Amino acid sequence: MSEPGRPPADAMTNPRADRVRDVAKLAGRSGRLKREQFFVEGPQAVREALQAHKECMDAGGSPIVESVYASVECLKRHPELLELTGYRNSKLHIRVASDMVLSAMTDTVTPQGVVAVCNFIDVPLEEVLAAKPKIIAMLCQVRDPGNAGTVLRAADAAGADAVIFSNSSVDIYNPKAVRSTAGSLFHLPVVRGVDLADVVAAAKAAGLGVLAADGYGQLNLDLLQDESAARAFEQQIPDSQYSLEQPTLWLFGNEAQGLAGEEMALADHRVAVPVYGSAESLNLGTAATVCLYASARAQRRAD
Amino acid sequence: MSEPGRPPADAMTNPRADRVRDVAKLAGRSGRLKREQFFVEGPQAVREALQAHKECMDAGGSPIVESVYASVECLKRHPELLELTGYRNSKLHIRVASDMVLSAMTDTVTPQGVVAVCNFIDVPLEEVLAAKPKIIAMLCQVRDPGNAGTVLRAADAAGADAVIFSNSSVDIYNPKAVRSTAGSLFHLPVVRGVDLADVVAAAKAAGLGVLAADGYGQLNLDLLQDESAARAFEQQIPDSQYSLEQPTLWLFGNEAQGLAGEEMALADHRVAVPVYGSAESLNLGTAATVCLYASARAQRRAD
Repeated sequence: MSEPGRPPADAMTNPRADRVRDVAKLAGRSGRLKREQFFVEGPQAVREALQAHKECMDAGGSPIVESVYASVECLKRHPELLELTGYRNSKLHIRVASDMVLSAMTDTVTPQGVVAVCNFIDVPLEEVLAAKPKIIAMLCQVRDPGNAGTVLRAADAAGADAVIFSNSSVDIYNPKAVRSTAGSLFHLPVVRGVDLADVVAAAKAAGLGVLAADGYGQLNLDLLQDESAARAFEQQIPDSQYSLEQPTLWLFGNEAQGLAGEEMALADHRVAVPVYGSAESLNLGTAATVCLYASARAQRRAD
Repeated sequence: MSEPGRPPADAMTNPRADRVRDVAKLAGRSGRLKREQFFVEGPQAVREALQAHKECMDAGGSPIVESVYASVECLKRHPELLELTGYRNSKLHIRVASDMVLSAMTDTVTPQGVVAVCNFIDVPLEEVLAAKPKIIAMLCQVRDPGNAGTVLRAADAAGADAVIFSNSSVDIYNPKAVRSTAGSLFHLPVVRGVDLADVVAAAKAAGLGVLAADGYGQLNLDLLQDESAARAFEQQIPDSQYSLEQPTLWLFGNEAQGLAGEEMALADHRVAVPVYGSAESLNLGTAATVCLYASARAQRRAD
């Protein structure tokens, strides 16, 4: 930026420019796969992306953010975005763009003032398992981008070590999925495009227990939680079938159908979140939250 | 219906008919308030509405469902809808309507084949409190209809006794909110349009503790849960500040800002759901789920 408060001479104002179209193409799956990039929108998400970029660059890693486009208005309201790109290792500068350009990039009627193009940040499964994870969430055949993002955000809150998306799940780089993560996408490792059976085999080999979240599961999550609390108070628990204190890979299925029979068969146990009222079931985000928090609580108490 | 498989002669086919417009007006708040009615869409939600209607009529109450419109196709796939209206006390019959008509009624591009017009079902606060409730969820200034519905569904799953919407919250009869409840709207009493201070005063007088869910709260929900489990194992808990076993009114705030200072000041305590990872916060539905399940678990263990 040349002078605060005025659009600089090199501001992007043509919504039909090639660069604008290139960003817009990242809204579609094929566009993203071709460039191995995705975009994030809005001050909060871009801030998280830039923070992750900074940590990565400072550690000598490869760049996470490739470019940032923002309106003058947005930069005035969020000077921290300039700070986050203005340090020595950043290799970034923010291009000023008009609202029309930002709107054309993200196909939204009310653009949020800032867009960052990011390189894919998912990591190989081996890397996740080598780090001795204690809680992993895996999504199988989850179709709704909002649900995928919500589960990732809940996994972050519960302190999970990674989130894995099976090859039949929605793309986590989908703009709506990215938005639903509220920045959590940059907080914990993500693995994608992997086969459920491969993940389960590798996780078991790495010493993780595998639990399938299933409304009809034979193990009751509340019972497992109570047993875990009882162990903390040094009570004798006869015949406990699973200890929540142990490292666990949780499997979550499609929002409407849940996990398929052959998917559940891969797990050590099927665990139900009890429904106390007359709700037919819990929604995916809700069920995943309760499961992941149950593991987190048990493990932290045991630490 | 005259003959299965064919549209009967009196099928509604004109999307501009007065009756169609009357239903369509229920999509807006003023239209709903004028008629004190709302609509539900889709086989699952209509089934829940009809089930609630049946129970109410059998008990000599006033009707919940006023009318049902369905496509021939939908009735073929869901014969239970006909069964649920075909009994003696029902006072209902299903009008067959074309997809164009159903689409015009609900302003959706892909109509779900069936629409029911229902009378408002909310109840007075006094009725809820007289029933000696153990868990109540109250939403204050919640703006997003999807969030409101998700919290109601989670409250149903956790076995809550009622959900209360403050007068500054989104209308639970909004079509998107109704849809997000996945039928739970018909499972537990709902109170709406009430003032937070009035509700808190009445709840306290009825013996309920009042907890405000707040990311910055001084009480940690996990600690309260552990103390509750410890009591179940007859451990001594010195200085416990709140017992989750007691009847509780939970307050949840706006999805972005949370509860306002003066709202939190009305509660006995501010309770935080711990965030173990680096997520900035939990989303509303997630936080409410964890809180309501914590109460449910503690109370059921104490029973």
